[in-house]
Amino acid sequence: MRLRNNPDAINILKAHPEHVIVEPSAYKGRWHEVFQNDHPIHIEIGMGKGDFIIESAKRYPEINFIGIEMFSTVLLKAYNKRKDLDLPNLMFVKEDAANLLEDFEENEIDRIYLNFSDPWPKKRHEKRRLTYESFLQEYKHILKPHEHLIFKTDNRKLFEYSIVSFTRFNCHIHDVCLDLHNSEGYEDNIQTEYERKFSPFGPIYRIDISFHKNKPIHIKNERGES
Amino acid sequence: MRLRNNPDAINILKAHPEHVIVEPSAYKGRWHEVFQNDHPIHIEIGMGKGDFIIESAKRYPEINFIGIEMFSTVLLKAYNKRKDLDLPNLMFVKEDAANLLEDFEENEIDRIYLNFSDPWPKKRHEKRRLTYESFLQEYKHILKPHEHLIFKTDNRKLFEYSIVSFTRFNCHIHDVCLDLHNSEGYEDNIQTEYERKFSPFGPIYRIDISFHKNKPIHIKNERGES
Repeated sequence: MRLRNNPDAINILKAHPEHVIVEPSAYKGRWHEVFQNDHPIHIEIGMGKGDFIIESAKRYPEINFIGIEMFSTVLLKAYNKRKDLDLPNLMFVKEDAANLLEDFEENEIDRIYLNFSDPWPKKRHEKRRLTYESFLQEYKHILKPHEHLIFKTDNRKLFEYSIVSFTRFNCHIHDVCLDLHNSEGYEDNIQTEYERKFSPFGPIYRIDISFHKNKPIHIKNERGES
Repeated sequence: MRLRNNPDAINILKAHPEHVIVEPSAYKGRWHEVFQNDHPIHIEIGMGKGDFIIESAKRYPEINFIGIEMFSTVLLKAYNKRKDLDLPNLMFVKEDAANLLEDFEENEIDRIYLNFSDPWPKKRHEKRRLTYESFLQEYKHILKPHEHLIFKTDNRKLFEYSIVSFTRFNCHIHDVCLDLHNSEGYEDNIQTEYERKFSPFGPIYRIDISFHKNKPIHIKNERGES
């Protein structure tokens, strides 16, 4: 979404470290300390105005949620929605998706959500799409083994591209839905603001994947015992 | 499609071996002899009334086409459409898709088309879907290395299922199109009769895949030469 830039946004965000972290690399490998519990951590990359992750945090208090957004003006919109809510399991982070490895340790995350990511339709911008190979490499690193990434979009070409990108990267595809709002079995879907606005005009696509992670190697002795 | 059974159909087909082969296993490994040339061989599995493969044979005389259909009554409809056409590169085969390994040698085929296959929507009929694992195993065997299978359908649930099935079988996905008739780059699409009839009511889905085939192993000598 395009918003008029608010030059004060970053200062307002910095003044509320209890809800917004602007230097997240300081917490790499220590996110459980931030939440002061050992609950699973789910992150949304490019959360926009935050509707999805705020609703998720309300609905699942036993899960910690981190909403990541790179634009201060957008992040401030999300902050204003959550600031009066009692949601100790929700934290916002200002960060570029290209820097996730600076902020999260290997296997630190239990789920990744990508919702209505910028499609970057021009071929020369392929590397900016959040389902491009370099991002998948990051996701694979920070996700625990066997844990999932769930991606929703209404952009047909981005979804087509992403299926090819996921399989080229050797992901497992657990589930594909080509019309989320007209399918059974997705009644727990949490809509984003964008999704509510645009779903009347065409199908919402959804895919649920995980990554092949190398399993630890067990050295066997001569009797075949590890 | 459902047609009233025509008990005479099989006898009519048997009377025209120049166009229809009802015992295809006799030609296993020898299909180039049938066509009397070494052109590539493309097959359509479940060709129905034959519009797609007849048009393909007209358009690409340097490719040999085999249309496979298990129901005599349906196959007779296709035969009646082609019987007066001069298409030496087109042959029809009466066969069940489950028996492909009896009819085709390993690496004998250059392309497989699946068009609007029966969706078999009930979970207990999953094994009958032409994108079920046991069929993929056949396709992988008879397709040459690096050659493609192209699948089209208007059935959303069959397409969703098939993407998961393909990736579980470790296929390469080269291209996905979620609205074939409203996409650029597919102007050479040949429509089936069903496709012309039903495309106004929803998108046509298309996917282009290939299979990982084991490469021949080159034994290297001590200097690393094969």
